[in-house]
Amino acid sequence: MEQKIQSLREQIDQLNLELLDLLSKRAHVAEEIGEIQTSLGLSHYDPVREQEMLEAITMANLGPFDSGTLKSLFKAIFQASMQLEHEADKVKYLTSRKTHQEDTVVYVGDIPIGSNHSPVLIAGPCAIESQEQVEATAAFVASRGVSLFRGGAFKPRTDPYSFQGLGVAGLKLGREACDKHDLKFVAEIMDARDIDAFVEYADVLQVGARNMQNFSLLRAIGTTTKPVLLKRGLSATIEEWVMAAEYLLSAGNHNVILCERGIRTYEKYTRNTLDVSAVALAKLETHLPVLVDVTHSGGRRDLLVPLTKAGLASGADGIMIEVHPNPAVALSDNKQQIDFEAFDLYLEETGYHKKLSQKRHEVYGF
Amino acid sequence: MEQKIQSLREQIDQLNLELLDLLSKRAHVAEEIGEIQTSLGLSHYDPVREQEMLEAITMANLGPFDSGTLKSLFKAIFQASMQLEHEADKVKYLTSRKTHQEDTVVYVGDIPIGSNHSPVLIAGPCAIESQEQVEATAAFVASRGVSLFRGGAFKPRTDPYSFQGLGVAGLKLGREACDKHDLKFVAEIMDARDIDAFVEYADVLQVGARNMQNFSLLRAIGTTTKPVLLKRGLSATIEEWVMAAEYLLSAGNHNVILCERGIRTYEKYTRNTLDVSAVALAKLETHLPVLVDVTHSGGRRDLLVPLTKAGLASGADGIMIEVHPNPAVALSDNKQQIDFEAFDLYLEETGYHKKLSQKRHEVYGF
Amino acid sequence: MEQKIQSLREQIDQLNLELLDLLSKRAHVAEEIGEIQTSLGLSHYDPVREQEMLEAITMANLGPFDSGTLKSLFKAIFQASMQLEHEADKVKYLTSRKTHQEDTVVYVGDIPIGSNHSPVLIAGPCAIESQEQVEATAAFVASRGVSLFRGGAFKPRTDPYSFQGLGVAGLKLGREACDKHDLKFVAEIMDARDIDAFVEYADVLQVGARNMQNFSLLRAIGTTTKPVLLKRGLSATIEEWVMAAEYLLSAGNHNVILCERGIRTYEKYTRNTLDVSAVALAKLETHLPVLVDVTHSGGRRDLLVPLTKAGLASGADGIMIEVHPNPAVALSDNKQQIDFEAFDLYLEETGYHKKLSQKRHEVYGF
Amino acid sequence: MEQKIQSLREQIDQLNLELLDLLSKRAHVAEEIGEIQTSLGLSHYDPVREQEMLEAITMANLGPFDSGTLKSLFKAIFQASMQLEHEADKVKYLTSRKTHQEDTVVYVGDIPIGSNHSPVLIAGPCAIESQEQVEATAAFVASRGVSLFRGGAFKPRTDPYSFQGLGVAGLKLGREACDKHDLKFVAEIMDARDIDAFVEYADVLQVGARNMQNFSLLRAIGTTTKPVLLKRGLSATIEEWVMAAEYLLSAGNHNVILCERGIRTYEKYTRNTLDVSAVALAKLETHLPVLVDVTHSGGRRDLLVPLTKAGLASGADGIMIEVHPNPAVALSDNKQQIDFEAFDLYLEETGYHKKLSQKRHEVYGF
Repeated sequence: MEQKIQSLREQIDQLNLELLDLLSKRAHVAEEIGEIQTSLGLSHYDPVREQEMLEAITMANLGPFDSGTLKSLFKAIFQASMQLEHEADKVKYLTSRKTHQEDTVVYVGDIPIGSNHSPVLIAGPCAIESQEQVEATAAFVASRGVSLFRGGAFKPRTDPYSFQGLGVAGLKLGREACDKHDLKFVAEIMDARDIDAFVEYADVLQVGARNMQNFSLLRAIGTTTKPVLLKRGLSATIEEWVMAAEYLLSAGNHNVILCERGIRTYEKYTRNTLDVSAVALAKLETHLPVLVDVTHSGGRRDLLVPLTKAGLASGADGIMIEVHPNPAVALSDNKQQIDFEAFDLYLEETGYHKKLSQKRHEVYGF
Repeated sequence: MEQKIQSLREQIDQLNLELLDLLSKRAHVAEEIGEIQTSLGLSHYDPVREQEMLEAITMANLGPFDSGTLKSLFKAIFQASMQLEHEADKVKYLTSRKTHQEDTVVYVGDIPIGSNHSPVLIAGPCAIESQEQVEATAAFVASRGVSLFRGGAFKPRTDPYSFQGLGVAGLKLGREACDKHDLKFVAEIMDARDIDAFVEYADVLQVGARNMQNFSLLRAIGTTTKPVLLKRGLSATIEEWVMAAEYLLSAGNHNVILCERGIRTYEKYTRNTLDVSAVALAKLETHLPVLVDVTHSGGRRDLLVPLTKAGLASGADGIMIEVHPNPAVALSDNKQQIDFEAFDLYLEETGYHKKLSQKRHEVYGF
Repeated sequence: MEQKIQSLREQIDQLNLELLDLLSKRAHVAEEIGEIQTSLGLSHYDPVREQEMLEAITMANLGPFDSGTLKSLFKAIFQASMQLEHEADKVKYLTSRKTHQEDTVVYVGDIPIGSNHSPVLIAGPCAIESQEQVEATAAFVASRGVSLFRGGAFKPRTDPYSFQGLGVAGLKLGREACDKHDLKFVAEIMDARDIDAFVEYADVLQVGARNMQNFSLLRAIGTTTKPVLLKRGLSATIEEWVMAAEYLLSAGNHNVILCERGIRTYEKYTRNTLDVSAVALAKLETHLPVLVDVTHSGGRRDLLVPLTKAGLASGADGIMIEVHPNPAVALSDNKQQIDFEAFDLYLEETGYHKKLSQKRHEVYGF
Repeated sequence: MEQKIQSLREQIDQLNLELLDLLSKRAHVAEEIGEIQTSLGLSHYDPVREQEMLEAITMANLGPFDSGTLKSLFKAIFQASMQLEHEADKVKYLTSRKTHQEDTVVYVGDIPIGSNHSPVLIAGPCAIESQEQVEATAAFVASRGVSLFRGGAFKPRTDPYSFQGLGVAGLKLGREACDKHDLKFVAEIMDARDIDAFVEYADVLQVGARNMQNFSLLRAIGTTTKPVLLKRGLSATIEEWVMAAEYLLSAGNHNVILCERGIRTYEKYTRNTLDVSAVALAKLETHLPVLVDVTHSGGRRDLLVPLTKAGLASGADGIMIEVHPNPAVALSDNKQQIDFEAFDLYLEETGYHKKLSQKRHEVYGF
């Protein structure tokens, strides 16, 4: 019996090699077709042709496989061939680390984000509410060595009757305060029609979670060269998030920073669930910088420090956090913003205190 | 012991009534303040004032409650008062059944959707691909008594290199085919800048799941009077979905149809999980018509019939389904669209066969 | 160019047929090996052998496929062959409709559940709390034509200090009340060591959501012939749920009834999300009866009627619902149980009124 | 107008203080009742009494609040009082950091886990498959300074026909190898009836994700003093996880180690989603040690290093990881276990290399 099995296994080994030979031959012919299609500007994928091949195969089938199994095996073979053709075309995804192996560093002015640069910290209020509020916060965070200031002028709000932001007036206030305190200004854009105002007043265009798959907006931003902070959608897969970035790169804007901000799960103790695997995988599969928004990830002040540490440990290139002069009276998200005193404690407990000083030193020489 | 408890409980009963008395008094005073604020155009909610009250209360506290508990109790009291003020203002949500008790019927031309009207069926291909394809499908579904034709001209696609639709040319093809076969045309809009073309060519503006919280788009559509089909976001809560509809109504467009299309869960056998509770709750809490997109809900052809039955049984006012002359070669979603033969079977198994005939009869008299 | 493509495509067609030929040959040899293995009582799957084959193939590879692609193609081929061997062995899953095409009808005494029998209704309190409570509820539901009574004697509770049920004393109370009112008794079992008591006092052994993958318990119950009501785990995939049933069938107990009870999602308006696709797929892929627990699915009284209708419309063979003489004072789940008056309304609105009368008539002749 | 508002606000301030006074009085009376109930062994919560109070209040109500609002306000008041009674009883949760402020250190033999002790590493194969395999792995991990060895003898498997472990024979093999290499033995228990064997052969009893709410098993383990490793259920909330630990502590076993292992989400790139917020919150809200199982969290080898770093950064007291002499031929989970070479790389990249050496030194003095 053992001998019988042995002999049958040798037949299998032989058949495997013959299959390999045929598969390779087939792939070479397919590559040739692919080249012609590329030269003619045709798509490689032709579903009608595929359908016809599958029919010819199942018609010729005498068993023992059933048609379903054969179709599935041949589809796998077709896909493998088409993959080869795509690679030959170099139509690889621009976001992919296979296309671009080194880490991308996005510069916001002279501030580098990504690769082996010191992790950045983006801090500021959820929404810009008044000249006093934005000025106080900008002055404070700048005094702590922060270089990137966030503040929303257009706020996406679930309820249409909630405070929706100050609009262009808010953008101007943010710009003014940032200029005064030598800060870069990060602001969320929600509408492609506002793009000129954002290009004028902001340094980084943030695309919020709700707009991650607002493809019209992505394409419009893609035509500028402004750095973009692309948040992950609240239930977006990692693949969808990376593909949203691909919209920006394919439209011409390569200054893309990804930002994980927690995903929606069943857990009730936290507002969202920070997905550190997504940070690690975004770093593995793309060459783009990745940040973590610790305020929205947990929605709890007592999680800001551990989520910052975990985010950086998983490979993040920086953190985004909300700070407000008086969170209790904030017009939005008042439960999760921290005040100045808490921010100082945060800097110390996370070690950002040292990172930012060091960074100031590097950048400004003092 | 029993007597002692009895006597203490009588004290509690007395204290309860005194609390009731004080709470009512407080509410009357708060209402008075609210009226003045309304007359001055001021917001009822003043977080600084609330903060001050809470501080005064916790300062005066001698126990046994701790400050946290007291703050939480008094916040509940403040909110209850504010709720009264809001009701007094009649600033109720326009989508709420409390504001508008009767079912809203949205008319697409002469086709009524909602309330006790026969459930509608919206059928057509995922994407409009060519004149032949749209013409064949429109002719076919019209011959089966369908009055509402769907077909995407602008397609939101995860991958920027996938087929993105024919754009305005597709809208024109859809319009042409619908006019020829006396169909109403449902098409998805993704960009506020396309609104004029949609108003010209489409009868129903569909807002897709990815754009459910694209508030700029919602506000733009809200300024038209075109019927809107608002799909639930892929991980939107029922509350967020209803609030998205509120954006449309508050901007002036009351012709809103909600559409459940399955939510994203961990389950792998289905593309999404149809949430029939959301259908039932949307009907309970709003007065708007609610449809179910059975194609995207399950992502499986073998679920189209049971999901249709379950959707209608849970209260839906109609169904949306994708039909294609040759799904195997469709440029998008080719695994879940059905062909003409399968559509006939679907009509029969779901009983739509009779519902549509009946409806034709009612509407056209033959 | 077109001609060139045409000629290359003919080569491809030829290669496809040669591949088909080789794949079929290979499958026949593999089947022969499989038969010998079966006769020797050996497993078909031999990971070491598979590893060796993959190494031989990738060693011989000269391109253009890379090793990863080839491994994945050959693994698909190996799996297809092994699938053939498994089918030859008839080691199909006992739960699968491919193994057993007709609907299984599970009899609880003379009550049939499944197939084209009238849908059943299982009603009773969440927990058995006292002789008075169980007697009142049993008398009431029996008077409405209900034949199956539920009541928990052992309650799985998140908090160890919550009411955990009356234990065996509760089982006895349930048995007594059911005997008196000619009802079948459904009770949840949580521990394999209690199996004798359950066999003595209960008619249907319920396995709760938390114990769906308590494999020791499943195997123990599988050695009895008592009907089992197997609830879906709160985040179980359909596949895991069906495999849990397979544990019962493979241990010898074929009287298995599946019960969908909602899955855990992010939605906050409902306690769980009823998954009607799971009901439909469980009916498609297995031959077992499937029920829906409408109380736990929604966790809201205002959803009981629509979820019942949707559940039955999606193919369910019956419904489980919680009824309590005075829900406000129930020792568990008091927000979601309904009282007697509400139950009467429920029977009428769902049409169960007629279904149950009809059923009594059929079964008892009056 | 401003003056009018000012005067009304003074009235409100006065009413607030009167409410505070009444609420405090009421709480004192309720405390008195609570003390009597405790002395009589009665529960504090009496739903009938609560119902009667609510009826009395709503009967006496003359507006402006509606009954629903009043009920909800008074329920908040009742709950706040009952909370006070519970605190008075010192029936606080044993797992809570409020009850026990210092970090608990669980000793497995002389190995301390938790608090400021160096993070531990539990390593070993998913399943114990043979004497050779367990011996090779134990020898290897011991040579790297690992002190805690994992290996499953009873395996919970979705499919009843999959390899289910060697059972008690596996436990003996594990014990033998651990004794030989001076390792502590961690093994999963699935059935309360196996407890004697586990007490004899294992050093740490692991409760798997599927059994986290197998309360019979928890209670049985709670009667021993063996250290327990309690994994979080695959969709368990943090609260449910902590309450499962409370079952163990309340039954007498305080040697409980929590273990986060990723939760089930919609994401497809990872097997589960590691929830670092849960690690941080478990550390904040309980005094127990918390580990992270990095193998199951991601289900991907390329995530082991970043998830280890993120887990430790979020506060974890150690890591659990699967190592196998030849993962390709492992009888379970063969895609996610790493081989010896990869383990050495892992130790170096995570810095465990140094942590373990240091630890050996501390414990053994060399």
